[in-house]
Amino acid sequence: MNNNNSNEMYDAIVIGSGSGGLTAAVGLSRFGKRVLMLERSRVGGDCTNFGCIPSKSLLHLSAKASDGAGTSKVAPETTAELLKRVRQRRDDLEAHERDEFGSMEGIDLVFGTATVTSANTVTVSAPDTTHQPSPATTGGFVVNPVTYRADHIVVATGSSPRRIPIPGLPDDMYLTNEELFEQEAVPERLVIVGAGPIGLEMAVAFNRLGSRVTVLDAAAQILPGLLPDAAEVLTRALEAQGVELKPGLAPHRFQAANRRLEIGPLGEDPTDGLDDVDAVLVAVGRVPNSSNLGLGEVGVATTDGGQIIIDDKGRTNIEGVWAVGDVTIEGGTTHMANAWGRRLIQAIALPYLPLKKRPVRPAVTYTSPEVATIGDQPEVPAADVRRITVDLSATDRAYTDEADHGILIVDVRKLSGQVLGATIVGPRAGDLIAMFSLAMANDIAFHKWYGTVIPYPTYGDAVTQAVDTYISETFPNAGTELAAWAQGRFRALRTRLDRA
Amino acid sequence: MNNNNSNEMYDAIVIGSGSGGLTAAVGLSRFGKRVLMLERSRVGGDCTNFGCIPSKSLLHLSAKASDGAGTSKVAPETTAELLKRVRQRRDDLEAHERDEFGSMEGIDLVFGTATVTSANTVTVSAPDTTHQPSPATTGGFVVNPVTYRADHIVVATGSSPRRIPIPGLPDDMYLTNEELFEQEAVPERLVIVGAGPIGLEMAVAFNRLGSRVTVLDAAAQILPGLLPDAAEVLTRALEAQGVELKPGLAPHRFQAANRRLEIGPLGEDPTDGLDDVDAVLVAVGRVPNSSNLGLGEVGVATTDGGQIIIDDKGRTNIEGVWAVGDVTIEGGTTHMANAWGRRLIQAIALPYLPLKKRPVRPAVTYTSPEVATIGDQPEVPAADVRRITVDLSATDRAYTDEADHGILIVDVRKLSGQVLGATIVGPRAGDLIAMFSLAMANDIAFHKWYGTVIPYPTYGDAVTQAVDTYISETFPNAGTELAAWAQGRFRALRTRLDRA
Repeated sequence: MNNNNSNEMYDAIVIGSGSGGLTAAVGLSRFGKRVLMLERSRVGGDCTNFGCIPSKSLLHLSAKASDGAGTSKVAPETTAELLKRVRQRRDDLEAHERDEFGSMEGIDLVFGTATVTSANTVTVSAPDTTHQPSPATTGGFVVNPVTYRADHIVVATGSSPRRIPIPGLPDDMYLTNEELFEQEAVPERLVIVGAGPIGLEMAVAFNRLGSRVTVLDAAAQILPGLLPDAAEVLTRALEAQGVELKPGLAPHRFQAANRRLEIGPLGEDPTDGLDDVDAVLVAVGRVPNSSNLGLGEVGVATTDGGQIIIDDKGRTNIEGVWAVGDVTIEGGTTHMANAWGRRLIQAIALPYLPLKKRPVRPAVTYTSPEVATIGDQPEVPAADVRRITVDLSATDRAYTDEADHGILIVDVRKLSGQVLGATIVGPRAGDLIAMFSLAMANDIAFHKWYGTVIPYPTYGDAVTQAVDTYISETFPNAGTELAAWAQGRFRALRTRLDRA
Repeated sequence: MNNNNSNEMYDAIVIGSGSGGLTAAVGLSRFGKRVLMLERSRVGGDCTNFGCIPSKSLLHLSAKASDGAGTSKVAPETTAELLKRVRQRRDDLEAHERDEFGSMEGIDLVFGTATVTSANTVTVSAPDTTHQPSPATTGGFVVNPVTYRADHIVVATGSSPRRIPIPGLPDDMYLTNEELFEQEAVPERLVIVGAGPIGLEMAVAFNRLGSRVTVLDAAAQILPGLLPDAAEVLTRALEAQGVELKPGLAPHRFQAANRRLEIGPLGEDPTDGLDDVDAVLVAVGRVPNSSNLGLGEVGVATTDGGQIIIDDKGRTNIEGVWAVGDVTIEGGTTHMANAWGRRLIQAIALPYLPLKKRPVRPAVTYTSPEVATIGDQPEVPAADVRRITVDLSATDRAYTDEADHGILIVDVRKLSGQVLGATIVGPRAGDLIAMFSLAMANDIAFHKWYGTVIPYPTYGDAVTQAVDTYISETFPNAGTELAAWAQGRFRALRTRLDRA
């Protein structure tokens, strides 16, 4: 490790040690490249520190401590302990990643704040210690600015929570996912602004922990972009757990006297108020961390929103400067940062190997039930698209598991059978979507799914039903009736009969 | 409905209303065939009445009532209520199926005991009312023997628990899956004979409910046939929950005085004893219900064990006589009964349509964690097979969910990439195996799985790791190093490094 030598030359400098940056750095080092990894704060990025890891830990621990269905609450005395445990799990993982990564051959890990000063130089100054409770156990700290050179610069700086003004709200009551997991106690009344993945997951978790939770969203529907039928199923499920959902409403201002948050449609006067509010979690989207990096000076092109524009390989418009993950137009999730990190590695290390087609993007919201989507499903499908809807809550497994809320919606192109997209709301939606991802990446037409045996009783029965429906409509010559075989077990049939 | 006319002619007579029989009857009726369904007892067969439905209901309710992890127990006062609820759920479903099925167009449902008297006649006598607590709400009862004729006879009589003698054990302490769910209270000490799917699932459930559970098996390993590494992971998980496992031991005799079950290796003298036993659940396999049906007289060929031999279409050796489900050599699970029911429908109703290749057989044991298998994985793989093992408990989702026990083992043919089989032990193994089923049915070579984006953090990360490992070994020219891209997130890498 040598981080005080301004003449040091690397094959690649990776800025940011989140999912995209780690993937790129580890991958390139494995190809024999010398890599400098710059991190301004904690190793692991948003996912490890403020995202997936603490949020899924909290969801798990809150489910385990309550009845799992979210309808009974955790005893207040245990919630503080539980929040502490979430932080501990997160910190353990961060420390572990830091140790392992810091000692990895071929990679130098340096803590500091990076500025891109040209297409092949980065200047590093003292690190941001805001989120760095423990001293780095490995890696060097930069005291005076140092400039490093490399053939390739990979910008993997991620994103930050978008902050909107809520006049009158004290700072200590204004939370984002970066502050949320630092709370020592569960707020009695929690208002969540933003009914996206983060907002809804935390609504589920804090509701289990005993908070009275209200979720606002300026949009007319929770999880805007989700098919309305699926959003309706999720709405019913969350409301059954006791989460209050108020789509179409935004926060206007906070009155400290009675701790009242005035709310109303966006751009109109307040129409209502929420009293005795203890904390407000703002989860209204992400802002790419592309400013203060010198990218503008170097000429790297971004969208108006600041997302770095990359091509199929992860290249920006400036030769030698690459980008990956949330800071780009292809970001949004850990797995997409990983997928694009792999493409970038291949483009740098194996430039003559043909690239696979662009990865299909799955997304999961880890509410209870989970919501998983893949591909493109416009609200109104095109004329040549058959949309198949199955009541996942009518599968036998849902019956035995008392899973009352679920739906599967698959879009299939009529003649070719090409699977265009799928939406699943259900207990294991995040794992079920994997077979759609595999099928879409490999162009397995939906009629070719026929004959695949899915174990009974799993939630996958819903997939079998969808395939059967498609087959029966697509090959009517075989009887209206391939719908016949259709019928796995009898209940499946009954469900369809009931609906007909 | 007319069941007193001995001249009545049907297209098909289906004997048994379990998964295979229902699939066949409903399917054939949808093709315009007139179907007579004969049922001697309860509609829905073993799955609805003594198998999947009550067992999965019990697993769900016991998990919900305990902490889900199986380490804390349910309060004794609630267990009786819980057992009652399992019965209620099962009875509700049976009644529902009976109503719907009994009123279905094209199908006559008759309760009675069937004897096949020729290749196209079945004689029906008074039904067995043993397991029929409620009077049939639809369908007819046969009082005097009646003979029905049909072009096709479909034997779908299922299987029954195999019973082994345990000298000295009172009848009311000798339980199989047919009596288990009738218990009013949870036995304080439960011995389970047989470490197969039924035995282990019930061990998990009753352990949660407060029983002290010991599982014996004459074989040296739990789930005999499962790969040893997977069995070891499951063993650790079950023991961590408090289930006592004693492979290699069988029950010898019971001493009523101290309620002592003497146990020892099969065929040797007892070596040990279990005291204060309250009940013994015998789950040592299934016996096909092929006797007392007249099949021998008609000449239908069976194996020595009584399984009806069928061909690719579901035909027996006697023209006009078909069979499906547990009573055949292709039975064992509800989904396989369904899959073969579909083949039989196609063969009868659409004889000129080419049949798909034989379905690949997945199987799931719904313990905690679940165990899912598909395809053929001999203990020692062939020389041209690459066996890839991934520690599923090292995925990030396992970390956030505190899932300490899991493994994925995939067998891939080295040059072709053909997926030969997979074994998964993990929290959602039953749903994860579906993508293997789809891939194997559609010949998606394992290297073609590369580029499939599996959402993070799901248990499917283990699949991504397995694909990466395969790729890195198969295409070493691209660096030792496609292992590079390999690395989704950092922990995945660390795991691999640790193992190397």
